[in-house]
Amino acid sequence: MEILKTWAQSAPRLVAVAAGRAPADTVIRGGIWVNVQTRETLENQDIAIADGRFAYCGPDASHCIGPDTQVIEAQGRYMIPGLCDAHMHVESGMLTPAEFARAVIPHGTTSMFTDPHEIANVLGLRGVRLMHDEALLQPVNMWTQMPSCAPSAPGLETTGHEITPDDVAEAMDWPGIIGLGEMMNFPGVVNGDAKMLAEIAATQAAGKTVGGHYASPDLGPAFHAYAAGGPADDHEGTQEADAIARVRQGMRAMLRLGSAWYDVESQITAITEKGLDPRNFILCTDDCHSGTLIHDGHMNRVVRHAIDCGCDPLIALQMATINTATHFGLEREIGSIAPGRRADVILTSDLRALPIEMVIARGVVVAEGGEIQVDCPHLDWPDDARATVHLGRDLTAQDFEIAAPDGAESARVKVIGVVENQAPTRALSADLPVREGLIEGAGDTCQIALVERHRGTGGVTNAFVSGFGYTGRMALASTVAHDSHHMIVVGTDRAMMAAAANRLGEVGGGVTLWAEGEERALVELPIAGLMSDSPAAEVAARAQALGQAMAASGCTLNNAYMQHSLLALVVIPELRISDLGLVDVTRFELTDLIETNS
Amino acid sequence: MEILKTWAQSAPRLVAVAAGRAPADTVIRGGIWVNVQTRETLENQDIAIADGRFAYCGPDASHCIGPDTQVIEAQGRYMIPGLCDAHMHVESGMLTPAEFARAVIPHGTTSMFTDPHEIANVLGLRGVRLMHDEALLQPVNMWTQMPSCAPSAPGLETTGHEITPDDVAEAMDWPGIIGLGEMMNFPGVVNGDAKMLAEIAATQAAGKTVGGHYASPDLGPAFHAYAAGGPADDHEGTQEADAIARVRQGMRAMLRLGSAWYDVESQITAITEKGLDPRNFILCTDDCHSGTLIHDGHMNRVVRHAIDCGCDPLIALQMATINTATHFGLEREIGSIAPGRRADVILTSDLRALPIEMVIARGVVVAEGGEIQVDCPHLDWPDDARATVHLGRDLTAQDFEIAAPDGAESARVKVIGVVENQAPTRALSADLPVREGLIEGAGDTCQIALVERHRGTGGVTNAFVSGFGYTGRMALASTVAHDSHHMIVVGTDRAMMAAAANRLGEVGGGVTLWAEGEERALVELPIAGLMSDSPAAEVAARAQALGQAMAASGCTLNNAYMQHSLLALVVIPELRISDLGLVDVTRFELTDLIETNS
Repeated sequence: MEILKTWAQSAPRLVAVAAGRAPADTVIRGGIWVNVQTRETLENQDIAIADGRFAYCGPDASHCIGPDTQVIEAQGRYMIPGLCDAHMHVESGMLTPAEFARAVIPHGTTSMFTDPHEIANVLGLRGVRLMHDEALLQPVNMWTQMPSCAPSAPGLETTGHEITPDDVAEAMDWPGIIGLGEMMNFPGVVNGDAKMLAEIAATQAAGKTVGGHYASPDLGPAFHAYAAGGPADDHEGTQEADAIARVRQGMRAMLRLGSAWYDVESQITAITEKGLDPRNFILCTDDCHSGTLIHDGHMNRVVRHAIDCGCDPLIALQMATINTATHFGLEREIGSIAPGRRADVILTSDLRALPIEMVIARGVVVAEGGEIQVDCPHLDWPDDARATVHLGRDLTAQDFEIAAPDGAESARVKVIGVVENQAPTRALSADLPVREGLIEGAGDTCQIALVERHRGTGGVTNAFVSGFGYTGRMALASTVAHDSHHMIVVGTDRAMMAAAANRLGEVGGGVTLWAEGEERALVELPIAGLMSDSPAAEVAARAQALGQAMAASGCTLNNAYMQHSLLALVVIPELRISDLGLVDVTRFELTDLIETNS
Repeated sequence: MEILKTWAQSAPRLVAVAAGRAPADTVIRGGIWVNVQTRETLENQDIAIADGRFAYCGPDASHCIGPDTQVIEAQGRYMIPGLCDAHMHVESGMLTPAEFARAVIPHGTTSMFTDPHEIANVLGLRGVRLMHDEALLQPVNMWTQMPSCAPSAPGLETTGHEITPDDVAEAMDWPGIIGLGEMMNFPGVVNGDAKMLAEIAATQAAGKTVGGHYASPDLGPAFHAYAAGGPADDHEGTQEADAIARVRQGMRAMLRLGSAWYDVESQITAITEKGLDPRNFILCTDDCHSGTLIHDGHMNRVVRHAIDCGCDPLIALQMATINTATHFGLEREIGSIAPGRRADVILTSDLRALPIEMVIARGVVVAEGGEIQVDCPHLDWPDDARATVHLGRDLTAQDFEIAAPDGAESARVKVIGVVENQAPTRALSADLPVREGLIEGAGDTCQIALVERHRGTGGVTNAFVSGFGYTGRMALASTVAHDSHHMIVVGTDRAMMAAAANRLGEVGGGVTLWAEGEERALVELPIAGLMSDSPAAEVAARAQALGQAMAASGCTLNNAYMQHSLLALVVIPELRISDLGLVDVTRFELTDLIETNS
């Protein structure tokens, strides 16, 4: 890929093209210019492109056309700016940045603000740099948000590596770093934690954007204190009041539609009904599975959904283009069709249905009719990024035994209650039977284990979970285990749990489902135990097979695998599991599995 | 004045105050929060301030009040962000930055984006630094735009000093530099002038904002080429179509209401009638005389006027607060009432009439009831900035003689035609009488001279001007003579012209009117020949006396003195004067005074 010159480097040529003294590389002719600056559509307009940037946008660019200029006939279609995803985790697609880009470019996404928080937990700053470097190879704009919280909840989990304020300060000088990734340790900020404030300070000193993550419905002083700490955006709102409160506090509200996040419809009423100024509202995905990317789309899906929720199409487009660009200090670089900006433009024949008919990025046709037209180069991932599952030993069924109190015939235990379509769990209690001194799952309550995999300690934390509906002798193991990405094993049978865990140690990470003594599905994720460098369609097919195998084992949840992978996410209430034990995420403290009789 | 800490430095305290763990310095209680982020008003809200920044903004800040907290009762008044002037020249007020600040703070202006273009022409980079340094002493926010065009029209005038791309690059590291001042050499940009593009490049490389100035009604390829060159804003539009064209091209349209600029009413219809997204429209003054500051106001006058033109008050306020802040990359520093921002807030009891009842800047009450409450410190201006009128010798009436072609009885000459209420002049022609071999003024056409004053060359350029209406034997001389600030002398009598010019050499600069052999008015401007360090009221009184003296000499124009001072502004059409000769500013070339008979 040609290196994109800066606007300043290209300015002499851009000026010459606009003035008609030099020919453009490409002219798009006869389209409807969707102007996100004025929020209007302008018919019968042309766009001239040189050096990968817009040189001329206006009526009749014939003065920019030379004998070697490529002319694309828009044929009256809309010309909209390439779409921006304001906050997302590449790892959620189980894909490397290259394969993620390859999957989303045909959907019109040309700018991504990616937080490689997952790999940071596994490989630390080195992992962030690998993601950052592969991102910079892509033919579209993939900026990196420096992960802020590894561990996301210090004292409640042990990550593979930690991120420090010095790491943050160092990363701010890398070419692709756009800011700090979501500051998830909101209790830390609210309580004035020096380390968290130092990370924010390093980001502000670099003039970059501090991402927020305030996952609490409390909009009182704690929320205000979080805003005073410096985060500039937040995507954790779920209600209209959340979005409004954030914008009033001078943050930008990121409304999220991920594979399993549905936070646009409930919040966009701040615009559609309350009539607030839309400039500080932004669309993002946060997390998309490969299946969503293959079957439903990416930011085009989010924009379309916003429109379906009653949002004016031009406002919805602003929320995925110029609003995002402005937020990250990039309004003169991306997010609109205007001179000097990177020539990222989509041709579509319908502003509501938003078919993505042609995608141009940096002046190059990167996708047409849903098909990628360019290469998305892979990094040569080093061996240490491909061998990250360190179990230390073979696990056995005994590792998953949960001893009852001496002589007990049953035991009252805490149970992680999975809630359909929601990230928060419920902290439930259950009386479970005791057999041969071991507490056993019963009904919909089965076992969950957190298997340490970063340092080969052989550590296993055992607990109970409900809501999956599993039946028979089965186990599901995954090295995708937010946020510290040890290994989560959920199962009805301890031997199956051991087999599944050992299998992931063997293949270097991924997801495997075992039932009745055999492997029923496997998604290999060799890079950091999080990502595949296979194409999205292949990964999506394997993930689909996994989902079918889960259903065959009785699982009835939507997004069952995602629910599985979030059970160690010790920053979202109410009850989670970590390598250190069971975690009460309402009080942010470790808690006992077996309840006292009091 | 206490040095303001950065948000990051104050974050621990801001967080503690918002959370209720530490007391605020000041709480404003019971006001209507004008939220420019959401564009709404919120009743019965409180604001807590610590370290000069907002710590808490929301309902009931009683948890932020300690025994030493100053409590200000808003008594149901509106709390609006301090007003921002997005582009202005301090020198236009004939005041130093300190005295300008002192004049405008009671009007609610708390942030200014000042382009010391005038002093740059006289003293070069050193003059810019002096202005910058005094600006940083003030209790409000005065950022400096690095002047881009000295000379503004290379080859058409000689300045005291020149500004180079290296100067621009050097200044970008100064703490108070916010960007590049208006790029007035628009033909240079359109033609790809390497020096102009290098200045823009240095500014972009520093991540700062490039100010624009495209003073032409041509919205064709030349305009597009200018936009492609990189300027991010423009305040030279005069018609609705100008404003719309700029915003469509991804520039911000700055709508200007100065002492003699009336460009808001004609352009704000882009919002009020065309319904365009207002976020990219900004209000500014560009040039205000001390009289305007004393009698009419500053940015409060502009906002009020925008409202009078039919603009929604909240949108008008956005155009003078958050829009400006966003434009300069300062949206997390100024321009709104939100946590972390500088605590610049105005109390007013009426959003339309906008009485400025209390002004708080960086948490300090800086004005109340129209009276300044704080000191605005002066720089110790060095001698070389106070002795800048170098005439080289005493001038005599002979220096102003205009010889006729040999034997002519009359001569057809070009005349600079002043147009009431407009900056552009007309290129007129007149047949003038010849007496004793000299061409003489007649009727409303009198003489104009440009007297070199930077290098003491003794050079005088003579020409004719019409439109002032002067009668009797008089002359008006001024060392304010945009943009190179030599000395402009207009008069009906050559002896008076010489006397006036010599007088300014004697007092070190300013404006003087002579009539019938004596001085009738004098405004001393000892700093660079441009500014007084006396209070605005005194300068305004002297300027008013000057205006009365001009009227007594027959002048009938509005803003007559301003018209006088712009007659050497060789970037605005059609005909001007410079030290190099008469300038055709339609064709950007020197031209002959005496027309050929063809």
